[in-house]
Amino acid sequence: MSSSLVPPPAPAARAAPAPPSAVRPRHDREQADRIALSAATRRGARLPTEDVRGWLAERRRAHVFHVERVPFAELDEWRFESDTGNLVHRSGRFFTVEGMQVVERDRPHGDGPHREWQQPVIRQPEVGILGILAKELDGVLHFLMQAKMEPGTPNLLQLSPTVQATRSNYTRAHRGTDVKLIDCFFRPDRERVIVDVLQSEQGSWFFHKSNRNMIVETLDEVPELDDFCWLTLGQIAELLHADDLINMNARTVLSCLPYRDAAPGALLSDLQFLSWFTGERSRHDMRAQCIPLASVRGWRRGVATIEHEEGRYFKVVAVSVRAGNREVVRWTQPLIEPVGLGVAAFLVREVGGVPHVLVQARAEGGCLDTVELAPTVQCTPGNYAHMPAADRPPFLDAVLGAPSSRIRYEAVHSEEGGRFLNARSRYLVVDVDRDEDADRDVDADRGADPDPRGALDIAAALDPPPGYTWVTPAQLTALTRHGHYLNVEARTLLACLNAVATRTRAPRGPRERDAA
Amino acid sequence: MSSSLVPPPAPAARAAPAPPSAVRPRHDREQADRIALSAATRRGARLPTEDVRGWLAERRRAHVFHVERVPFAELDEWRFESDTGNLVHRSGRFFTVEGMQVVERDRPHGDGPHREWQQPVIRQPEVGILGILAKELDGVLHFLMQAKMEPGTPNLLQLSPTVQATRSNYTRAHRGTDVKLIDCFFRPDRERVIVDVLQSEQGSWFFHKSNRNMIVETLDEVPELDDFCWLTLGQIAELLHADDLINMNARTVLSCLPYRDAAPGALLSDLQFLSWFTGERSRHDMRAQCIPLASVRGWRRGVATIEHEEGRYFKVVAVSVRAGNREVVRWTQPLIEPVGLGVAAFLVREVGGVPHVLVQARAEGGCLDTVELAPTVQCTPGNYAHMPAADRPPFLDAVLGAPSSRIRYEAVHSEEGGRFLNARSRYLVVDVDRDEDADRDVDADRGADPDPRGALDIAAALDPPPGYTWVTPAQLTALTRHGHYLNVEARTLLACLNAVATRTRAPRGPRERDAA
Repeated sequence: MSSSLVPPPAPAARAAPAPPSAVRPRHDREQADRIALSAATRRGARLPTEDVRGWLAERRRAHVFHVERVPFAELDEWRFESDTGNLVHRSGRFFTVEGMQVVERDRPHGDGPHREWQQPVIRQPEVGILGILAKELDGVLHFLMQAKMEPGTPNLLQLSPTVQATRSNYTRAHRGTDVKLIDCFFRPDRERVIVDVLQSEQGSWFFHKSNRNMIVETLDEVPELDDFCWLTLGQIAELLHADDLINMNARTVLSCLPYRDAAPGALLSDLQFLSWFTGERSRHDMRAQCIPLASVRGWRRGVATIEHEEGRYFKVVAVSVRAGNREVVRWTQPLIEPVGLGVAAFLVREVGGVPHVLVQARAEGGCLDTVELAPTVQCTPGNYAHMPAADRPPFLDAVLGAPSSRIRYEAVHSEEGGRFLNARSRYLVVDVDRDEDADRDVDADRGADPDPRGALDIAAALDPPPGYTWVTPAQLTALTRHGHYLNVEARTLLACLNAVATRTRAPRGPRERDAA
Repeated sequence: MSSSLVPPPAPAARAAPAPPSAVRPRHDREQADRIALSAATRRGARLPTEDVRGWLAERRRAHVFHVERVPFAELDEWRFESDTGNLVHRSGRFFTVEGMQVVERDRPHGDGPHREWQQPVIRQPEVGILGILAKELDGVLHFLMQAKMEPGTPNLLQLSPTVQATRSNYTRAHRGTDVKLIDCFFRPDRERVIVDVLQSEQGSWFFHKSNRNMIVETLDEVPELDDFCWLTLGQIAELLHADDLINMNARTVLSCLPYRDAAPGALLSDLQFLSWFTGERSRHDMRAQCIPLASVRGWRRGVATIEHEEGRYFKVVAVSVRAGNREVVRWTQPLIEPVGLGVAAFLVREVGGVPHVLVQARAEGGCLDTVELAPTVQCTPGNYAHMPAADRPPFLDAVLGAPSSRIRYEAVHSEEGGRFLNARSRYLVVDVDRDEDADRDVDADRGADPDPRGALDIAAALDPPPGYTWVTPAQLTALTRHGHYLNVEARTLLACLNAVATRTRAPRGPRERDAA
């Protein structure tokens, strides 16, 4: 199709840049239609969805991937700095493992008792690019996904963005095809940008890390490459229901897609939602700074791990990697390995027929600006096992005890495999809906079917505890245009919510029909 | 009016909160109409505009205001810490003067030659509240402005927001009326919030400082207080044309008002503008950290000043203040005193009949996230006097040499008088418009009247140098909903642009009629 000498009409219409002395509308209404069409297209122009797993397995076989834990002494280019004990690369590039001290005055406006802790943290000031190339195939937007090896993911190979490049990569990379693909993002065509925003990454493990999340369309021919495949959003939505298949970088980029808001509104106006968020950011007083890794209290450095004295949270470890197909490269690097499976969950309910999720304003030591919007529940339950029930995170029991009938989405996803080893979380969307009239206290009169699980009933209250509020997925989507609002776990869940909406749209079940 | 037993219709219509199980529209279209009405109302329900100066003079006479420079040794509650040399308050509250080290790798993606400097900086991690109370009087929104004394402003007393409160103030203040006014902002009524956003302050003088900018409407009776007056936006626009009258805090809060965008579009879509900004934020690699004040190179500490070795930039000084009316209080504090008058200017031009301003993505050491949007020109020209012309800031000569016929706005405003002494800048809006067809290179054919000033002609190019782009005031207004986009100087100029638009709207001149 794209080899035709006559340019296809739809892309050509979009191609016309504004004449130099004219203005264009501030918002491109058409883009949302193209995204909706791609989401509704479950049969892509290239690889069928059911063949993706086989294709990934084949790509896995085509490459050498070998990852082995090694003691720190066997790290080639990495060493512990003598004065600070920081773990650094000889070049001064890539990243460092340093210490972080966090002081949090938890009560409103910082006048409460304060909490203080120290921990290792990854510092990587460079902004990398996570870029997905988009292209219309048969009139439908497809996205170029890469079968990408990362040493820290349990299955080593997952679907990633077209390009994942640190600054060191893209200022130095001169390796054939890759360079051309990187150029689409490094110097994006202004007329073809769909997503372009700096987004934060894990505030518990990174200090002030952010990456540039991009989706850029191309009208050019893109060469067929072994490790790449074109998929529609409908296909990706299907694949997002599988464990360990779509990597973190792909999930965060996809979460920023400007889906249209078809709902008539929300519980809070956007202004009210942002005002709530401003209040949350103002009331938290959290100060974090990097300190020498050697001075971090409560952690001990062994031959092959740096770990917490009670074995909680995570370890810093080292691995040796052999990878490649034609040319096999070998390198060593540190990774952060969490001690248990994490949980990240949105509670969802309808308000006036519109789905809402319960978000949390969550302070993390590595956040650039105190708090970001997080899932209702985000934690590693194992870290709380030693605590009394009252000190466990709010809503955790409601999520862990939810009956399967209430679970709208569940999958285990891996976090970034270039920095984290076996960092996996169960991502859940749990429905707490009950008869909405319960909010008007007329349950008894109507004989509404009471929910057997009290925890979910309590969680469904429209007036949640401080630090939580109900918002629509569309309101979260609107905020992904800007950085430092949704944290990376919330962005993964937003991508999952979109995948659920895509999957359930047709055919609609009786539940959806009733709600509409 | 508000003493009537029957509630007035307009506020009542707005007063109804959403029923618990219903949704409301995400955007309140009505608010912009109320703001436009206030902007169009030049005759307020209370103090006439022409009486404001007299009222300020009267308030000045009613108070004792005495500010005197003192040596550091005469600071009461402040001292230089022995180990760091930082200037700190005994309580650990308020703010500190510390050192800052900045390393900037200026070229795209940090691979260029780098620049490094050290300087004193104010560190104030607490988030304060800058709040303006709004109320309908005779059906028009009025804003409660305070005649507020600040030791650092040249005339000591300017119009400020209703409330300027640091966290220390508002967690401890129990002084009658003030508390009630603070409560409107500390626990704002969700149904009455008009503006609520964290905004940054001077990145050259503050390290990561931000304040909560708020406008909240009230339906309650507000007691008449000596130092407060109700003004419409039309009145404030008129007053914004005077020197040293509307203080910085009032300007930044007013800049966040959600004016309606009446223009058909913009040169760049919002997505393209944000993508450009993301690119600018990504390409700058600037790392700033606080260091001990005693270790700052290139600055020397004397008996009464800390100053730059070549006398450039600013000094740290100390003052003794006596102020009050019934009860006179006395305190001492450090202030930062810039060495010269600053210049902050927007170049403006029309594109397709829509006014655009040339913004700069400007990196400042104290920015939380590398760059923010700044005026086309923002500098203290004196700091560049020793440099060759080629090293002076872009567009500075175009602004300084602009003929008066091109100047659409000019006033000298003071920066925050609680931290800065005689920190004043000339704020300018300079029109670079010429025949738009010049962009199509057909000037010669049409015999267009060429602009005599080459600098302005060059500045008018639609394809400005890297780091600059043309956007509409409405696009900037949209971004004031979020923090860390517009810097405080750009926000002052945005408030000034709105004031110019308000003043020129009726009667319209021949120029405006042609453009419409």
